[in-house]
Amino acid sequence: MKSYFRKEIDAIAGYVPGEQPKLANLIKLNTNENPYPPSPQVTEVLRNFDPDRLRRYPDPTADALRELFAASVGMKRENIIIGNGSDDLLTMIFRAFTSPELPVAIFDPTYSLYPVLAAMQGAKVIKIALDRENFSYPEDAVSRAGNANLLIITRPNAPTGNCASRELVRQICRDFDGIVLIDEAYSDFSLDNCADLAAEFDNVLVMRTFSKGSSMAGLRLGYAFGNENLINGLMKLKDSYNVDMLSQELAKANFVDRAYREKCVRQIVSDREKLATDLTALGFKVIPSSTNFLFAAPPDGDGEGCFAALREKAVIVRYFPGEITGRYLRITIGTPTENARLLEVLKERFAK
Amino acid sequence: MKSYFRKEIDAIAGYVPGEQPKLANLIKLNTNENPYPPSPQVTEVLRNFDPDRLRRYPDPTADALRELFAASVGMKRENIIIGNGSDDLLTMIFRAFTSPELPVAIFDPTYSLYPVLAAMQGAKVIKIALDRENFSYPEDAVSRAGNANLLIITRPNAPTGNCASRELVRQICRDFDGIVLIDEAYSDFSLDNCADLAAEFDNVLVMRTFSKGSSMAGLRLGYAFGNENLINGLMKLKDSYNVDMLSQELAKANFVDRAYREKCVRQIVSDREKLATDLTALGFKVIPSSTNFLFAAPPDGDGEGCFAALREKAVIVRYFPGEITGRYLRITIGTPTENARLLEVLKERFAK
Repeated sequence: MKSYFRKEIDAIAGYVPGEQPKLANLIKLNTNENPYPPSPQVTEVLRNFDPDRLRRYPDPTADALRELFAASVGMKRENIIIGNGSDDLLTMIFRAFTSPELPVAIFDPTYSLYPVLAAMQGAKVIKIALDRENFSYPEDAVSRAGNANLLIITRPNAPTGNCASRELVRQICRDFDGIVLIDEAYSDFSLDNCADLAAEFDNVLVMRTFSKGSSMAGLRLGYAFGNENLINGLMKLKDSYNVDMLSQELAKANFVDRAYREKCVRQIVSDREKLATDLTALGFKVIPSSTNFLFAAPPDGDGEGCFAALREKAVIVRYFPGEITGRYLRITIGTPTENARLLEVLKERFAK
Repeated sequence: MKSYFRKEIDAIAGYVPGEQPKLANLIKLNTNENPYPPSPQVTEVLRNFDPDRLRRYPDPTADALRELFAASVGMKRENIIIGNGSDDLLTMIFRAFTSPELPVAIFDPTYSLYPVLAAMQGAKVIKIALDRENFSYPEDAVSRAGNANLLIITRPNAPTGNCASRELVRQICRDFDGIVLIDEAYSDFSLDNCADLAAEFDNVLVMRTFSKGSSMAGLRLGYAFGNENLINGLMKLKDSYNVDMLSQELAKANFVDRAYREKCVRQIVSDREKLATDLTALGFKVIPSSTNFLFAAPPDGDGEGCFAALREKAVIVRYFPGEITGRYLRITIGTPTENARLLEVLKERFAK
């Protein structure tokens, strides 16, 4: 059969999301979901929501959420765009700023979705290598980004978990002649963030998600903020009604319960540090993490083997093939019980 | 400030969805929403849904829905793709099949979003004019589609409400060298549909939405079906988790309650015929409709004036400027009470 697809689409394999296995008694530490439920306020809204409202279209720009997020980062509604998950925002951003003539620069390793989105646009990907041992950032990132029109800083980075220094990020925002996207998917778990840079620089977008710190991966909600001209341009690419009515309401209820969210985050951060210590004691090389996961290399450097051994015991983590990443596992921080079970299986394999 | 946007994005104005005014006591007949709530089964699911589940990612391909829809059109799961509203599917389809080298052919007038999506891709739009008086379809559509790679048949058509004949649609599917998208957003209200053509032809996609007949515009759900190769290609362009968990569950509960949905549809169709008769009696020219709206020209041919007069009385309909469409109003069928109020205002203006 003849293909009518654009050649770029025929050429790509598509992105494969982390598996969502349907086994019972599974310990699922593979997609960086939050081990705790969203705020109890969400239950209230869910129980009281009038389903008759669903026959109407939702607010196309989700202005109530824009107001909330704007206030939380000291900006205005016009500086905020809401996405059906940050995936939706990434799609808009790649469509806006990349093309066969407009490359994108990313660090390596980083979120594996970016090159897939670039391929859809027929855009070249310029990879700026992180240090092979500790994943630290090169000082000359801007010059290594070449003629890229978009540069993405994932901060904290995935899958490595570490953070580029704020000084470096600020320098990139100042010196790079193009759009800098700071993907803060995991910033709930880090000591600081870069929200202020979106206000300081005209060419900077900061993006966040409800899928990690906010315990709402199932709901699909993300937001990005930056200069009003950038937001207006992205709005043109947005599907007319991209965020449904229930998601808007539930996200609002969850977001305002900051105390609950911060309590869950504190617990996860504390458990992360405990697990890092325990893994190090087992001989793992653990990259210092500012996220809700650990990037950790087993003592034998065989990420794939360790992944398979865990899977056999119904503990699912994430493994990224590759010369450098293949030595590691990315392990989501679960509940203390889940983390203990992970450790138990790893002890069987590695305890001396 | 320098623009870093692709030139195509800077050049477009963006799509303006029908207004969602927030006035009280408004009679809102402007965006073809259903006047009746979704199935009572939706309320059940909403009340019993465990919010703890929201911390997990949803099924990325919404397979339970795919199975349901596949069964309803006599196809397989592999033939179905689910979208965050049919907007999401249209975005994928335009990204897949249009580009500066790959034009799209549409009928004129039709859904005003298509040219906006084409502009994002830098794709040329080939317009095939419908009859100026009755909006009937030309027999030579395929030859008039020129070198288009995608041809869209909106059936029933919006904003005109009429249907291309099944014979013509079949002939187009057979003869057109490219993808034929049959947008069946309004097919719940028509006497027949073209589901079988998606099974018969390799190059045909049929698309549907939950926003009209299914009373769930607020939820954002659409689906498309066709040859497995086409669906696989579109899947590459889909955001990883494009439909949230609650939407998947609520749509499922709503879809299986076919009896309720059909009862609402019968009521709307009956009220549509009544309103068509009443408007004709007032001197309106009413295009025979297979949808949940009427495309009707006031006696003086002044669509804009009539739109404004209705708006002054808090009755909102849709008006499309333009030499031909500007003579008409697009009026959503509401409840009998809403339709009566519309008619009352129009009688004040036009009764002899």
